[in-house]
Amino acid sequence: MLPMTQHVNRPRVVVIGAGFGGLNAAKALARVPVDVTVIDRKNHHTFQPLLYQVALAVLSPAEIASPVRTILRGAPNIEVLLGDVTGFDLQKRLVRLEGMELPYDYLVLAAGATHAYFGHPEWEEFAPGLKTLEDALEIRRRVLLAFENAEREVIAHRSALPLTFVVVGAGPTGVELAGAISDIAGRHLTKEFRGIDPRQSRIILLEGGPRVLPTYPENLSASAERQLKEMGVEVRTNALVTDIQQGIVSVGKEKIPAAVILWGAGVSASPLGRMLNSPTDKAGRVMVQPDLSVPGHPEVFVIGDLVSARRSNGQQVPGVAPAAIQMGRFAARQIKQTIEGKPREKFEYLDKGSLATIGRSRAVADFGRWQISGYFAWLAWLLIHLLFLIGFRNRLFVMTEWAWAYFTYNHGARLITDPMDKEPSEKKARAG
Amino acid sequence: MLPMTQHVNRPRVVVIGAGFGGLNAAKALARVPVDVTVIDRKNHHTFQPLLYQVALAVLSPAEIASPVRTILRGAPNIEVLLGDVTGFDLQKRLVRLEGMELPYDYLVLAAGATHAYFGHPEWEEFAPGLKTLEDALEIRRRVLLAFENAEREVIAHRSALPLTFVVVGAGPTGVELAGAISDIAGRHLTKEFRGIDPRQSRIILLEGGPRVLPTYPENLSASAERQLKEMGVEVRTNALVTDIQQGIVSVGKEKIPAAVILWGAGVSASPLGRMLNSPTDKAGRVMVQPDLSVPGHPEVFVIGDLVSARRSNGQQVPGVAPAAIQMGRFAARQIKQTIEGKPREKFEYLDKGSLATIGRSRAVADFGRWQISGYFAWLAWLLIHLLFLIGFRNRLFVMTEWAWAYFTYNHGARLITDPMDKEPSEKKARAG
Repeated sequence: MLPMTQHVNRPRVVVIGAGFGGLNAAKALARVPVDVTVIDRKNHHTFQPLLYQVALAVLSPAEIASPVRTILRGAPNIEVLLGDVTGFDLQKRLVRLEGMELPYDYLVLAAGATHAYFGHPEWEEFAPGLKTLEDALEIRRRVLLAFENAEREVIAHRSALPLTFVVVGAGPTGVELAGAISDIAGRHLTKEFRGIDPRQSRIILLEGGPRVLPTYPENLSASAERQLKEMGVEVRTNALVTDIQQGIVSVGKEKIPAAVILWGAGVSASPLGRMLNSPTDKAGRVMVQPDLSVPGHPEVFVIGDLVSARRSNGQQVPGVAPAAIQMGRFAARQIKQTIEGKPREKFEYLDKGSLATIGRSRAVADFGRWQISGYFAWLAWLLIHLLFLIGFRNRLFVMTEWAWAYFTYNHGARLITDPMDKEPSEKKARAG
Repeated sequence: MLPMTQHVNRPRVVVIGAGFGGLNAAKALARVPVDVTVIDRKNHHTFQPLLYQVALAVLSPAEIASPVRTILRGAPNIEVLLGDVTGFDLQKRLVRLEGMELPYDYLVLAAGATHAYFGHPEWEEFAPGLKTLEDALEIRRRVLLAFENAEREVIAHRSALPLTFVVVGAGPTGVELAGAISDIAGRHLTKEFRGIDPRQSRIILLEGGPRVLPTYPENLSASAERQLKEMGVEVRTNALVTDIQQGIVSVGKEKIPAAVILWGAGVSASPLGRMLNSPTDKAGRVMVQPDLSVPGHPEVFVIGDLVSARRSNGQQVPGVAPAAIQMGRFAARQIKQTIEGKPREKFEYLDKGSLATIGRSRAVADFGRWQISGYFAWLAWLLIHLLFLIGFRNRLFVMTEWAWAYFTYNHGARLITDPMDKEPSEKKARAG
């Protein structure tokens, strides 16, 4: 059966990646006379800004993710393909996947970024990062199991393990994670354990640079650090991590034992960027023309976290969701205009400000000249994230979950599920 | 630190399993002067009657499961332990776990049942059953991937794979699964695929016996079969499965190719039952005294799906949630009365009727002389399951999800998540 409304003679656009960039490119192409194939390794778009709330059991995966098919089902010219891209042939205009090749007239590469461990990939096992729903569920499992194991020690031996959580990196993700662990330990779990007191947990946030939230203005960094300390988080700046092993973080000669280690320190561009055989920067991001196309290939666009683009003031366009959304729409418009015989434009990033949340009622917001901290920054963060969350259904459920968690101090999603955990023998080994 | 409100001289009750039986025993013991330890392999109680809705992506795990700690946090004399029981010493009154032993004065064993493959454990890999949240998420992954892979074939080769789902066993779980697949294929996915038509899927329900829902009255079995056929499910009774391999179910000499095979055919008692070294029936259920205690050990109770108990009319007490709940409360009352020097009672199961749901607006209900089918049976099923779901929060969210799915024909939780799927190389292998 042929795709229902796709046409043989219309230009074919392949979009790789259904994150903020790819999804917005596809949506904008719904009104353009082209046939679109959206490829992603997952069947769902993830609203990454709220991933840490899945990791800390406030929200469920289905509340911050929607199937890509569902999001795009209203567009009859768009088909969705679950698959892994393995390479390109830019001369023949082909995308290669396992067992198949897809021809394109236009390619939009929006494959995003993944964790980077500063040349130490072996650290990942001991200090998971937070990019996917699977990462979030793994972090949730480790954090909740740490409390369970400590309680178990008290019941077995009438002695408590010291419970220390270390978060490496004080960018927005690291700050969110540290704050959320403080929330869960300090309020939500206190009535549920008989042997341990979760409020006695230590939460250490390690930052290699001189201040938390290094991309924010200095006064907001100072405010964020103050808010973290009020929540009981030990903030250590200029603390460069030199080694990570099972349960131990090294900062120079100091070894910090930790029940759970989380990674919020670095990202690197998807390896698909380098497969274009076009110049990349040292983080693997593709250097593009002002219209976001690859040099020599005006039919190939790279957008989102995978691109190295400069603003007219010379600054790098940041790897944030609003930039990816703007780039996606921009690339779609360039394709439309090229089909119509119009010239290309120059991408210009419109910075609407940035927000970082720290914990219950705590955040910082930078809207250029207007900078706020604390409760009102947190309210702004809440409203903006509800507004941009995809799907009315998700907004409804997340709003209800947040209201529930805020007023009852009770997280709704505190489940440890582990598909790898089917063999009783494995289970025992892990629990022991 | 010693447990806060537990007392050295009070009798210690160990409850193994936080299903319907164990949880209700523990709750009833909250008002008895004993110290209680509840042990489970999971950190959550699962509302098993709605598991199939997690498997078919109507509900999220957090909507039908709650942490055991949260459910019991109001009872200061109860502590919760995440762990695997490895054995017992009934003489010394000890429960053994990996790395520890727990003494008890009273033991309540409520470890439940697991899948049974009629002596063919190798079938499990190809035909997963439905007992835990992990099972439900695995079934969800297989069903959704089947549609994704079929769409992928159309895009790659312009030819569609035949999409067949086989459910083995037409007890309540098999009937629910078959009906729910029909719902998802027939309504929810139709607008989302361009190459395949999910409505063309075949759903085959195989039952070894002469009728579906064999424990129900014959007229309700006939009604259920009629309702299944109206939904497009091919019902085949007297179809005994003789072999299962990757993608192939054999019924005698006939081989049925299937994209997904699901198991709803049999359960067997937890192996912990046999570890008591007391007589069991052939399904591994422990034979108990009229007060549900183990012969020779009045301090050890076995309840729920793990027990072989008879009603005064000689019938077996069925392995259903209401029986487990009644047994849990009964065992707690026996412990209380023994402490008070009162004699033991005889357990009597009160049968309030049974309901089996088939699909949207379809069900059968058996309340003894009052038997109903179709829409009103389905409404009764809905109300009763909302009522018995633990926690106001879950009821609120499930009610909202059901209303949403009913009116929009749009399931909310259609996410494929797979923690094992971290290596791109593995992923490619699986997708290929």
